[in-house]
Amino acid sequence: MPLPTPKLQPYTLHLADFAAGRDTPTAFLERCLANVEAFEPTVGAFVHIEIEKARAAAAASTARWREGRPLSRIDGMPVGIKDLIETADMPTQCGSPVFEGHESHRDSASVVALRQAGAIILGKTVTTEFAARVPRGTRNPWDPTRTPGGSSSGSAAGVGCGMIAVGLGTQVIGSLLRPASYCGAYAFKPTFGAINRGGSHDGLSQSVHGPIAATLQDAWIVAREISDRAGGDPGYPGLYGPSETPSPVRPARIVVIETAGWKIADADAKAAFEAAMQRLADEGVRVHRRADDARVALLEVAIEDAGRVSHALVNYESVWPLNTYRDRDPSRLSSFLRERLVEAEKMTQADYRKLLAARAAARAAHAMLLGDCDLLLTLAAPGAAPVGIDATGDTVFNIPASYLGAPALSLPLLTVQGLPLGIQAIGFPDRDAELFESAGWIDQVLR
Amino acid sequence: MPLPTPKLQPYTLHLADFAAGRDTPTAFLERCLANVEAFEPTVGAFVHIEIEKARAAAAASTARWREGRPLSRIDGMPVGIKDLIETADMPTQCGSPVFEGHESHRDSASVVALRQAGAIILGKTVTTEFAARVPRGTRNPWDPTRTPGGSSSGSAAGVGCGMIAVGLGTQVIGSLLRPASYCGAYAFKPTFGAINRGGSHDGLSQSVHGPIAATLQDAWIVAREISDRAGGDPGYPGLYGPSETPSPVRPARIVVIETAGWKIADADAKAAFEAAMQRLADEGVRVHRRADDARVALLEVAIEDAGRVSHALVNYESVWPLNTYRDRDPSRLSSFLRERLVEAEKMTQADYRKLLAARAAARAAHAMLLGDCDLLLTLAAPGAAPVGIDATGDTVFNIPASYLGAPALSLPLLTVQGLPLGIQAIGFPDRDAELFESAGWIDQVLR
Repeated sequence: MPLPTPKLQPYTLHLADFAAGRDTPTAFLERCLANVEAFEPTVGAFVHIEIEKARAAAAASTARWREGRPLSRIDGMPVGIKDLIETADMPTQCGSPVFEGHESHRDSASVVALRQAGAIILGKTVTTEFAARVPRGTRNPWDPTRTPGGSSSGSAAGVGCGMIAVGLGTQVIGSLLRPASYCGAYAFKPTFGAINRGGSHDGLSQSVHGPIAATLQDAWIVAREISDRAGGDPGYPGLYGPSETPSPVRPARIVVIETAGWKIADADAKAAFEAAMQRLADEGVRVHRRADDARVALLEVAIEDAGRVSHALVNYESVWPLNTYRDRDPSRLSSFLRERLVEAEKMTQADYRKLLAARAAARAAHAMLLGDCDLLLTLAAPGAAPVGIDATGDTVFNIPASYLGAPALSLPLLTVQGLPLGIQAIGFPDRDAELFESAGWIDQVLR
Repeated sequence: MPLPTPKLQPYTLHLADFAAGRDTPTAFLERCLANVEAFEPTVGAFVHIEIEKARAAAAASTARWREGRPLSRIDGMPVGIKDLIETADMPTQCGSPVFEGHESHRDSASVVALRQAGAIILGKTVTTEFAARVPRGTRNPWDPTRTPGGSSSGSAAGVGCGMIAVGLGTQVIGSLLRPASYCGAYAFKPTFGAINRGGSHDGLSQSVHGPIAATLQDAWIVAREISDRAGGDPGYPGLYGPSETPSPVRPARIVVIETAGWKIADADAKAAFEAAMQRLADEGVRVHRRADDARVALLEVAIEDAGRVSHALVNYESVWPLNTYRDRDPSRLSSFLRERLVEAEKMTQADYRKLLAARAAARAAHAMLLGDCDLLLTLAAPGAAPVGIDATGDTVFNIPASYLGAPALSLPLLTVQGLPLGIQAIGFPDRDAELFESAGWIDQVLR
């Protein structure tokens, strides 16, 4: 039986209806659960789901809205938590047999914040093995022969077909924006450090938590509600920006970057992207590229090697804890991770310092554009989700924003081969709100 | 029965003897175990000890030395691991009933490195509750009516009486240098980020791992062997400096800082410190103070408030995970931590950003002295270990180095009331080796 056409489930759009009693979190959850029934047997977005607990939580939220005292603007929001992130009442298995059945008995900092704000934790969503490359069987709700992307596979697939309003995920290379692009959802990768990663198995130096969501507004508000309660990573100032979703502002100047991805992007993906850029230009936005500005050319050069450097950084930083898991029982690690570990263990501190220096140089090149362009645009993936679920697609377009520690969004505004494809918008560190202003305008124009 | 006089057990001093067969790691361990027998029933440095496993490991190390192929310069070194840091074969209980009997089944990054280098993990050493203020009964080997200091209580007490050669500890406020000062041992708090904290329950923005040791050489070499294998925290370059312990170099210019501690330091502690400074001056070192240099005066002002700011930073950053433990079972947290949590939960992101800004300003004031003075000196504690084991002593002298993210040492070179007291030497971030050069010379002159 073919799947229905996937449909996102925006949440904060309904707040006035919840307040007025025209809609309720319980009714919202039931719409999500109908999608769970329709999609989940095929898609497999969840490793653990707690439907009855969610119904009880939705009933409590419905009562709070009825009494006019919701805990926050995400009170009642059904959320899926990437299974890399700890939850007190559900196992945290990291997509790995090493953590099979593992119970940490505590919530991550972000999950504490979500619960305090009244969000409903519907379940744990599939991650690839330790958020690396080996997928765990999730299928794309738009076409189950295709990957949903990874590593936040379940969060993207779950949001993409409306099983949850928001999926919390993580990105160190391309784990939020690529799956969101493939599944037709919005993704928000905040500035590095903006959301407290306490209690999550992603301590890497480019990794950051962020929401995959049904609208830009949902993405902003859920990130805001988390950071307001949990703060950023220790030593970081947390997410900057207003309480309300930043209003759309037409950007004066956009920089289009090719990245290493343009050379391998699908022809129809490029055509769809260029048509979108033309529409923005038609609206009076100046669109500059590497040929127009030496600083853009410099940035392109500085990020050319971002893939090699990022992977090497991640590999070095992943030696621990993978070495402890291998030493305990090598059979519980994929051969992919075992081989990566062998390579990483050959690296020295001196090697690592060179990588850090290359990344710092790229960040300096990026900073040179600050104040003179509003945001960078490129594709969020080389094309629609590829066929096959043994791999999660190419990360090439996602690496630069991770490498730069910059906030980035995937906007599901393109269609190729009848499948969704994201436009990626990249801002400047700690200017997440300004990115939302520009992206909000682009979203209005192109939607 | 009175305790014997505590005696440190230097390790790397014996490497030539191990190589020549005149001494062995087994014989070294047995000397440590004799101290365990004499001191441990009174001192209580360990929460978990594995004597037979340690003997087997020492035998293996002895064989490696005999065959001329030791794994490293710390092969066979008996080490205690602060019970905040994970070990695969022993519980990690964090000094808290929340973690009673907790087994993480993995080694921390630092413990992996120690094992790879052949060090012997003798046991887990007592930490105060979650490395905060509530002690867990350890007594000072110099006088069991007194505190050994905290939070690395067991590592300092264990090294102080030669039960272990090195104790791995952590410091976010004063948890390495103060207990080392009280117990007559050396402590090395590296530059923030220099040693990978993976697998340790101290993710705070000033926290760092470091050794308490019997000599400066042991401290350097064990830190070097760990950082070479485990690296620094993700995104940090790891410990800078040579493989061998930096040779002593007479500093040209020393800055003595009072910190907020001088006003409350004991008269005899001040007198002993001033006598030591006079001896350094007699050796031709220029000793400058706040009255001599406007930049020193500025630094003193910038760190005046370091205690309030550091504690507030730590409190905000500790909300998670303490809130999850409280929500699960409040009775398993001390009233001290429960009350601290209530206060911390009132803080906002805006409050936290102000604290970060104050710390950044202090670091900038410190950096102004770089290149123009070799190191800063002050006391490591206001006096000898105070009587009583219900508190761990005053952290006031330790806060500045933690606040500045700077490398610092406690050198057990003073005696007051027949008890040890440390001189604290503070360097500049990522110049740990230069700090050892100057401190090595001071150690030679004053020992």
